[in-house]
Amino acid sequence: MTDATIPGDLRNAFDAYERAIVANDLDALDAFFAPGEDTLRGDGGGLLVGHDAISGFRALRGGVPPREIAEVHYRPLARGGEAVASGSPEQSTDGDIALLVSVSAFRGGGRGLQTQVWQRIDGRWLIVAAHVTPRTPALDRTIWRSVGDPFQQGAWEGPLEGLTVAVKDLFAIAGFRIGAGNPTFLEEARPEKVTAPAVADLLRAGASLRGIARTDEFAYSIAGDNVHYGTPPNGAVVGALPGGSSSGPASAVALGHADIGLATDTAGSIRVPASYQGLWGLRTTHDLVPRQGMLPLAQSFDTIGWLTRDGETLHRVADWCLSYDGSASTENVYGASGDDLPWRFLVPEEILDCVEPATREAFSRMLAALAASDDPPPFRAVHSGDLDATFTAFRTVQGAEAWRNDGEWLRAHPGAVGPAVAERFRAASQITAAEEAAARLDLESIAAHLAELVDGAVLIFPTVPGPAPLRTADVDAVRAATLRMTAPAAAAGLPAISVPLLTVAGAPVGVCLVSRAGTDIALVRLARRLAALVGSGAGR
Amino acid sequence: MTDATIPGDLRNAFDAYERAIVANDLDALDAFFAPGEDTLRGDGGGLLVGHDAISGFRALRGGVPPREIAEVHYRPLARGGEAVASGSPEQSTDGDIALLVSVSAFRGGGRGLQTQVWQRIDGRWLIVAAHVTPRTPALDRTIWRSVGDPFQQGAWEGPLEGLTVAVKDLFAIAGFRIGAGNPTFLEEARPEKVTAPAVADLLRAGASLRGIARTDEFAYSIAGDNVHYGTPPNGAVVGALPGGSSSGPASAVALGHADIGLATDTAGSIRVPASYQGLWGLRTTHDLVPRQGMLPLAQSFDTIGWLTRDGETLHRVADWCLSYDGSASTENVYGASGDDLPWRFLVPEEILDCVEPATREAFSRMLAALAASDDPPPFRAVHSGDLDATFTAFRTVQGAEAWRNDGEWLRAHPGAVGPAVAERFRAASQITAAEEAAARLDLESIAAHLAELVDGAVLIFPTVPGPAPLRTADVDAVRAATLRMTAPAAAAGLPAISVPLLTVAGAPVGVCLVSRAGTDIALVRLARRLAALVGSGAGR
Repeated sequence: MTDATIPGDLRNAFDAYERAIVANDLDALDAFFAPGEDTLRGDGGGLLVGHDAISGFRALRGGVPPREIAEVHYRPLARGGEAVASGSPEQSTDGDIALLVSVSAFRGGGRGLQTQVWQRIDGRWLIVAAHVTPRTPALDRTIWRSVGDPFQQGAWEGPLEGLTVAVKDLFAIAGFRIGAGNPTFLEEARPEKVTAPAVADLLRAGASLRGIARTDEFAYSIAGDNVHYGTPPNGAVVGALPGGSSSGPASAVALGHADIGLATDTAGSIRVPASYQGLWGLRTTHDLVPRQGMLPLAQSFDTIGWLTRDGETLHRVADWCLSYDGSASTENVYGASGDDLPWRFLVPEEILDCVEPATREAFSRMLAALAASDDPPPFRAVHSGDLDATFTAFRTVQGAEAWRNDGEWLRAHPGAVGPAVAERFRAASQITAAEEAAARLDLESIAAHLAELVDGAVLIFPTVPGPAPLRTADVDAVRAATLRMTAPAAAAGLPAISVPLLTVAGAPVGVCLVSRAGTDIALVRLARRLAALVGSGAGR
Repeated sequence: MTDATIPGDLRNAFDAYERAIVANDLDALDAFFAPGEDTLRGDGGGLLVGHDAISGFRALRGGVPPREIAEVHYRPLARGGEAVASGSPEQSTDGDIALLVSVSAFRGGGRGLQTQVWQRIDGRWLIVAAHVTPRTPALDRTIWRSVGDPFQQGAWEGPLEGLTVAVKDLFAIAGFRIGAGNPTFLEEARPEKVTAPAVADLLRAGASLRGIARTDEFAYSIAGDNVHYGTPPNGAVVGALPGGSSSGPASAVALGHADIGLATDTAGSIRVPASYQGLWGLRTTHDLVPRQGMLPLAQSFDTIGWLTRDGETLHRVADWCLSYDGSASTENVYGASGDDLPWRFLVPEEILDCVEPATREAFSRMLAALAASDDPPPFRAVHSGDLDATFTAFRTVQGAEAWRNDGEWLRAHPGAVGPAVAERFRAASQITAAEEAAARLDLESIAAHLAELVDGAVLIFPTVPGPAPLRTADVDAVRAATLRMTAPAAAAGLPAISVPLLTVAGAPVGVCLVSRAGTDIALVRLARRLAALVGSGAGR
């Protein structure tokens, strides 16, 4: 089976396309794909539909490593005027359709597979559909630093038996370094002597570690676009940002590499990737889960939490890790979560103002569906307070603490951190003691107001302004709106859960519930009740 | 873009095919693929051509995890009598050709992509080409136990800087257990305190560890089909055995996951996978590379060596690891390798008798090409001695030592080892002291004869009887012939290199060179000289 019968002009087009791939000649590649909305291109990262979506993706991908075409198989499918019954055309004519399936051999080992449907349009052979399998890597380094089967075995029985954990690279695992998303930091780190209790609790319950997953540098980002290791794929939306800073655990869970993401949330680092990738994500009450063995970003707001694909798993994890019986790592007496939370919701108006129209509509539809359900909860609009003021106070204290934690290291390692995170630290370095003190005062009254709101009801609102932005989008505006939505719970130290209840233009958006401090397990129960009521159809 | 316009009978066929996939109904799946030699099916493991090849593969694959079809995109390509210009047929007719590209969403997370070209033949829609991307796993557990980016960083400079190593799961890495290809053994193992010198030498030279790669259980096999973790893919031949027992390192190197496989060869465990996967593989002189920190199989024959994709890399590794200057792990004074080996070859007739006809022909063509080259070496046929006797003596001593090493553990863990390896150990347990002593005596004269042969010339012969057997083949006969070919060098403790110089029916077969004890580096040099002369075209 050879390429002997490929029409000459088709072979030339195929060869020219292959040269353009290896050279990463974006214009040439664009020109080889048929224009219009019907053109298809897919790989392990997902399926892109339409020439423009395909073109947009190319800018992100970078070139392919050196390779040769080892085999080409040609199957004529249609001639301009008729389907091909047998034989092969010597000369091609307009409207001809042909299948080319080729195997590429990479010089550095490994093989790839390309399936292309070509059509002759206006005298040129163009690709109308392509399916690409690149050589398989040993691991996806955008998601994982290290991964195993298992990476570390947990107890052979327990309530989390059989589940696997992606550990964000901020937690101590005995014998391993903490990398914090930065290769220079990793290089200089020393192996940890003791496993963080948040990790040990999971192991003791029978969960096993799948591996150490990527984080944005020092967890100081919500985008998930680590400049050193690349951007992990969004498991729900092709070509979209994964959300950060718990990007690796989130993508690992979304893609089925692990069942539980052990993560941290300072300003939204669990809730944002949960919303972007259609996951459940719980930010716990501040100081509920002890943070020994976790690299801090800003101690006043740092919390530990989990990402899962479903509410039942998150419930099991929270039940174990937050209950007095199960956990050696928490001092929670479980009492506050023993009672159910009130079935009564507050919609904070200022937060809703940050939400994009399509997402706001989906959220309204969900509330309407709830109101029309068998178990309609009361809803009431409330004022969450000035979000600019909340965020400013939050950012000031966060920055001051982050600089105290990492400033010395950053000063000693100029250029070691990516530009966006470096700029954030630079701004943080300018914060004065007076500014910090004033911000702490502001936070006290902000927290008091929010605590009052959730005393007898639960806040409900979309987790983020809208679906995950495409990786090609300018994310600064989204970032500002997002942090205004996620900062209040962080500023008040309240538990917050993101539940994948909305679908906007085919992409998931989370609904965030915020409740009283210490009611974390009850919050998960409430979220499951809400999700069961909304069902899979509501809010779409 | 939806599936609204798919003809009803095509949609029914697609749905029925999907049900058959999830149910792993092999007969139904076979029936959905068009008969004949033109049908194509490919995935990351490679491309299968022809209905029978596709059908044979299915038996190996097992089912797919639970999933739903999330999207289907339909593109009519040809109608029975004409190419499709626009619009879509409401009813399909014979000869119609259609493209269906579908996205599957796995219940356990992750997505897959299927591209199928369907053709209506005799009233039934059948698949004439398919390209499948399953959900990507965190790691390929058939190849790897643990993998990282890097798994362990080597020195930041050195002669092997930038190269990555797949370490066979028989070597100690400080902080990690040795798994030996058996999950029960791994479970009970304790973390190693000291890294094996063979590993440390590579790290010190700047290579980094990519991870811990799979081995056949206790290295007591040459097939590479570990019953616990599955069979690693052969990087060169779709659906073929990878070769063992160094299966994981070999597949990792062939697929480009790592540059160097650190492996062991007792009876052929480096040479066999090298030949099967088109790699360079060096079994070193017995006792040249100290084996501290390596789990033994049979101390009289155990050796350490390396697998690479090219001769230059193997040369660099051998130069460093075997030279007095570079290595802390060897006592070789390098002297024996300072001189070149004689450019004079001996073809052992009894070994050649084990070779399959097509491979023997390819080998003869290669010898003829060498004879006609600018630098023709003299060749002479010699007698290697009775291979049955050699193998019997080898197997007796190997078995006795293997049982002394692992017998106690095996007795304490009935059922913990796969049937083929268990049977091998059972036979080993029957060997008497008298039989072992007699076999050792036999080995002395066998080794003396072989040492005499390689004193002034180099043995040359195909490494194994032929290309890697398909995983569906009955491999017992091949195994017997293979071990008769690989045992002599092992019995005599001689260095042996397998060089990928032959191609038989599209598959690689190695040429084995065996030289005087201690001439390992010179043997690599000689192999490179030979490979340069043969070039890429000779021997095919």
